[in-house]
Amino acid sequence: MDLASLLGIIIAYGMLLFSMVATGAPLILFWDLGSLLLVVFGSLGATIMSNDMKVIKQVPTYVGLVFKSKNYSPMEVISQLVGFAESARKDGLLSLDDAIKDVEDKFLADGLRLVVDGTDPIIITKILEIELSKMDDRHNRGAGFFETWAALAPAFGMLGTVIGLIAMMANLGDTSSIGKGMALALITTFYGSLVANSIALPMSAKLRGNHDREMMYKEIMLEGILSIQSGDNPRILEQKLYSFLPGPERPVSQEP
Amino acid sequence: MDLASLLGIIIAYGMLLFSMVATGAPLILFWDLGSLLLVVFGSLGATIMSNDMKVIKQVPTYVGLVFKSKNYSPMEVISQLVGFAESARKDGLLSLDDAIKDVEDKFLADGLRLVVDGTDPIIITKILEIELSKMDDRHNRGAGFFETWAALAPAFGMLGTVIGLIAMMANLGDTSSIGKGMALALITTFYGSLVANSIALPMSAKLRGNHDREMMYKEIMLEGILSIQSGDNPRILEQKLYSFLPGPERPVSQEP
Amino acid sequence: MDLASLLGIIIAYGMLLFSMVATGAPLILFWDLGSLLLVVFGSLGATIMSNDMKVIKQVPTYVGLVFKSKNYSPMEVISQLVGFAESARKDGLLSLDDAIKDVEDKFLADGLRLVVDGTDPIIITKILEIELSKMDDRHNRGAGFFETWAALAPAFGMLGTVIGLIAMMANLGDTSSIGKGMALALITTFYGSLVANSIALPMSAKLRGNHDREMMYKEIMLEGILSIQSGDNPRILEQKLYSFLPGPERPVSQEP
Amino acid sequence: MDLASLLGIIIAYGMLLFSMVATGAPLILFWDLGSLLLVVFGSLGATIMSNDMKVIKQVPTYVGLVFKSKNYSPMEVISQLVGFAESARKDGLLSLDDAIKDVEDKFLADGLRLVVDGTDPIIITKILEIELSKMDDRHNRGAGFFETWAALAPAFGMLGTVIGLIAMMANLGDTSSIGKGMALALITTFYGSLVANSIALPMSAKLRGNHDREMMYKEIMLEGILSIQSGDNPRILEQKLYSFLPGPERPVSQEP
Amino acid sequence: MDLASLLGIIIAYGMLLFSMVATGAPLILFWDLGSLLLVVFGSLGATIMSNDMKVIKQVPTYVGLVFKSKNYSPMEVISQLVGFAESARKDGLLSLDDAIKDVEDKFLADGLRLVVDGTDPIIITKILEIELSKMDDRHNRGAGFFETWAALAPAFGMLGTVIGLIAMMANLGDTSSIGKGMALALITTFYGSLVANSIALPMSAKLRGNHDREMMYKEIMLEGILSIQSGDNPRILEQKLYSFLPGPERPVSQEP
Repeated sequence: MDLASLLGIIIAYGMLLFSMVATGAPLILFWDLGSLLLVVFGSLGATIMSNDMKVIKQVPTYVGLVFKSKNYSPMEVISQLVGFAESARKDGLLSLDDAIKDVEDKFLADGLRLVVDGTDPIIITKILEIELSKMDDRHNRGAGFFETWAALAPAFGMLGTVIGLIAMMANLGDTSSIGKGMALALITTFYGSLVANSIALPMSAKLRGNHDREMMYKEIMLEGILSIQSGDNPRILEQKLYSFLPGPERPVSQEP
Repeated sequence: MDLASLLGIIIAYGMLLFSMVATGAPLILFWDLGSLLLVVFGSLGATIMSNDMKVIKQVPTYVGLVFKSKNYSPMEVISQLVGFAESARKDGLLSLDDAIKDVEDKFLADGLRLVVDGTDPIIITKILEIELSKMDDRHNRGAGFFETWAALAPAFGMLGTVIGLIAMMANLGDTSSIGKGMALALITTFYGSLVANSIALPMSAKLRGNHDREMMYKEIMLEGILSIQSGDNPRILEQKLYSFLPGPERPVSQEP
Repeated sequence: MDLASLLGIIIAYGMLLFSMVATGAPLILFWDLGSLLLVVFGSLGATIMSNDMKVIKQVPTYVGLVFKSKNYSPMEVISQLVGFAESARKDGLLSLDDAIKDVEDKFLADGLRLVVDGTDPIIITKILEIELSKMDDRHNRGAGFFETWAALAPAFGMLGTVIGLIAMMANLGDTSSIGKGMALALITTFYGSLVANSIALPMSAKLRGNHDREMMYKEIMLEGILSIQSGDNPRILEQKLYSFLPGPERPVSQEP
Repeated sequence: MDLASLLGIIIAYGMLLFSMVATGAPLILFWDLGSLLLVVFGSLGATIMSNDMKVIKQVPTYVGLVFKSKNYSPMEVISQLVGFAESARKDGLLSLDDAIKDVEDKFLADGLRLVVDGTDPIIITKILEIELSKMDDRHNRGAGFFETWAALAPAFGMLGTVIGLIAMMANLGDTSSIGKGMALALITTFYGSLVANSIALPMSAKLRGNHDREMMYKEIMLEGILSIQSGDNPRILEQKLYSFLPGPERPVSQEP
Repeated sequence: MDLASLLGIIIAYGMLLFSMVATGAPLILFWDLGSLLLVVFGSLGATIMSNDMKVIKQVPTYVGLVFKSKNYSPMEVISQLVGFAESARKDGLLSLDDAIKDVEDKFLADGLRLVVDGTDPIIITKILEIELSKMDDRHNRGAGFFETWAALAPAFGMLGTVIGLIAMMANLGDTSSIGKGMALALITTFYGSLVANSIALPMSAKLRGNHDREMMYKEIMLEGILSIQSGDNPRILEQKLYSFLPGPERPVSQEP
């Protein structure tokens, strides 16, 4: 699990636990399995209804991505691309043929192969842009799943509270149980807000963050591939790709 | 009915039913026909007011589409398009004339016929883009109907609750009936949230999901039609169209 | 009045009336002229403040448009445009000079006259696009008036409720009147939500729907005018314009 | 003050005053200086924090613009521009040199001078578009100030209510003062909603309305300047500029 | 600290303090360390969860930027750019080589060096636009951190209130402590709204304001660099760059 997630979870849940203890009430008061099931699975059920099976099947993958974000090193891919540009300039585009076999990233490998095959630059741009745009759509659907969940969890929390209140109201004569009834009714509101704000929304935000990093990584590759094809000066290419990075992350020896 | 809808309905409604039972109150307490009519038909009435008759007449079709989503197989249409590209390259565009008769999708058939007739590519693009853009508008209106409903259902639930409270308040002297009055007043809030979150919103989300899949399907066709006309290499066309799909769905034998 | 508006009004208001009756309280309980005036005119006053006199003067026109929507028949204008394209092809653009005099729609007539006068196509496009874009702005202002009203009506309803509560609270000793005071305070909330959800929002949605239909109608004309000028094949023009319509509305004899 | 503002203020505040009187409670009940200060200045303080000093210094100017909107007469500027186009056609662009001196609007004068100086049309377009885009940014900041205020006023009203409630709760024993305490607590909510809905939001809407009118005015000038430079026919220019106006505002003698 | 922040803080917090004192309740009543910790750190924890470590590490920098905004003087950079344009016109682009060494702004220096090196203008535009677009992304992430916090603080305030209410409800028999319990429960709502509206939102707004000023500053440089390369007339360049500024800020001697 990445550090920010871990740190955030410890702080946020620690604070919540601490303030439950601080009320002096027994912790068991904040636990009601039925309410938890209603809020978590009720809202998940409505979220599932709103999606199609293909997205649902991807959910475990999305959850995995939340906790195990890929490691992007733009510096590495930049120097790799500059290296390719240099050999392409010296020995021609065909010289890249061997190098491509060692490229792990499928997007970069496919793009470079198209260059080596002498494909029209307009078609290469089109192919790589379709790929990015469809990846964007897919990632949006992933983050959207958790955003729908985040919207529905408090709604189901509220439904649970209203169910509890209706049951309680019909039975107002028995004043001794009003407090307990109210407490129980409020618990679903509590769970709904908890699920939305400390589970579903952070998961969706994390996925969107991962997506932004991956997009920038792919955009660097796209720029690099097209520059290599048009035979740009490797120094200029390097500077172009460095402009994706914030100043402090660029190597000091940037200017040759 | 598609699996995700079915699964979601069972889970969400199961949870709600379970938590009503768990309150220990008789289930009949959560049923009030008058309240249900107000929330469902009142909000539907206001939704109908907001639309014109043409959209209203389509509503049964929309409802049908929610439960019976078309089956899109991008792989099939890609291999079909690549096949057309191959025969066009070998035997000329006119050779497609017969093949078009077997194309079921009207959008694809119309596009290919324009190609065979030698229409200017700019005009073909224009025609097909108008078609997609207007389809987009129509689908938006469909999903929009359910989104308007989803916004109005809780509003009518709230109106019902306020009506109930006003009637009850005017009669506060009779303390024995306060609880029952409150319970009844709350029921419209309950129904309003239920209609919005577990009926109208999932229906609209489903329609938008269907729309996204259909758009991608049509975009694949549009790219294919234009590539066939400009005489692109079928291998390149295949790769271009595969870039619409996520990596794992592409055939492993993609590179020839 | 168009059918959808009428139907919607009957259903929505019928349901509300029915549920007021169903409370068993006398209907007069839901009527308070002062509250109605505050909510309706208070919110209208704030809406008027937010606009300038020109928009305010148009409000009666907008209201008229809500109830009496123009009848658009795209099929008719398409066959008219195709007819023009045919005579332009046969007898030259000047042959349209007489036909234009019978064209009722000012947008179409102006556009065709520019074509007959031999104006540069870029300038024609510019003129017609400015016209559409400014029509869009004006319609937006109209729908916006009712959207502002829809946002302010519940706000004034809430202001009325708070005014009522403050007056009541200061007088808590007199417990006999608490219920009545609360009921009265709640009535402005009721009216505010009613005005927003069953008057202002449907009016704005109706205006936006009319606008969408008019825009499509004008876009068909714009495409037709430019095609006639560039001398497109009338068959192709027909197919281009049909692509604005949903499949089932196109004539079966479309392919010649 | 323009008529719509005046009318709106009289209606909206009249209604509010009337409904306060109608409660039968003394008007003084709705007045609490401390609460008013908290809501108005507290929210203004937070709004000031959110902006930088340059914007704050402009606020009096913005307030002035709300009440004293400039008078735009598009008809006048159109005939002026058509007049310039005619003399430019007859006597050459240089003939405009004298006329520019009498042009009051700085944007129009600057643009025409660039034309007379023979500046490249691309550069003129760029200069005038930067000017419009930066004017747009500045006006946005002005309207944004009041929108931030409109969002913060109810928030400070709510803060005041919570402060009041906390103080009251800690003192629940003294039941005689509960009503008064509640009334006082509610007053900040009342002021917050009042400031947002009947002061800040209408001011921002007014500024946005002024902005829209000024933008259209400037767009007419921009189109006119560029047409004069490219030597368009004055009749065509007239028709182009009239297309900015709604049909009924165009002169009947438009067609020559 | 810039003046607007200081002024705003004094006014807003002064008003809040004043209205707490005005309730007559002891100030200590509004202080509860546990509640403060829950709201501030709980919401910060959830915000941290939603971001990745890179953003978290930048937070102190962002906080610094809120209080110590850079001083932008567009007039200075405009005259600098006009000076460069003049020497480039007189002595050729290479004459800028020395001048660049004294340019402090890295963006401007890099851009001018590319010009001196004779890089293709399309590539220069691309490099500088990537730099601006990525800066935009980074600043968005910074402001986004505080916006997420502003959304989560009231949510954690509400969670705290619900926790307090549940604990209190379960213990309703002990009526003597209800008031105190409610007061304590409300305090987290109070803190949540306070953190959002008077800390997090103003910080984010401040960062967005700084960003807008920096972007305009960089856009002036971008326009200047490209104009210098294309050899535009320095007078025209000056007028183009002045069009970024509001009329009153332009020097009166603008026209030569």
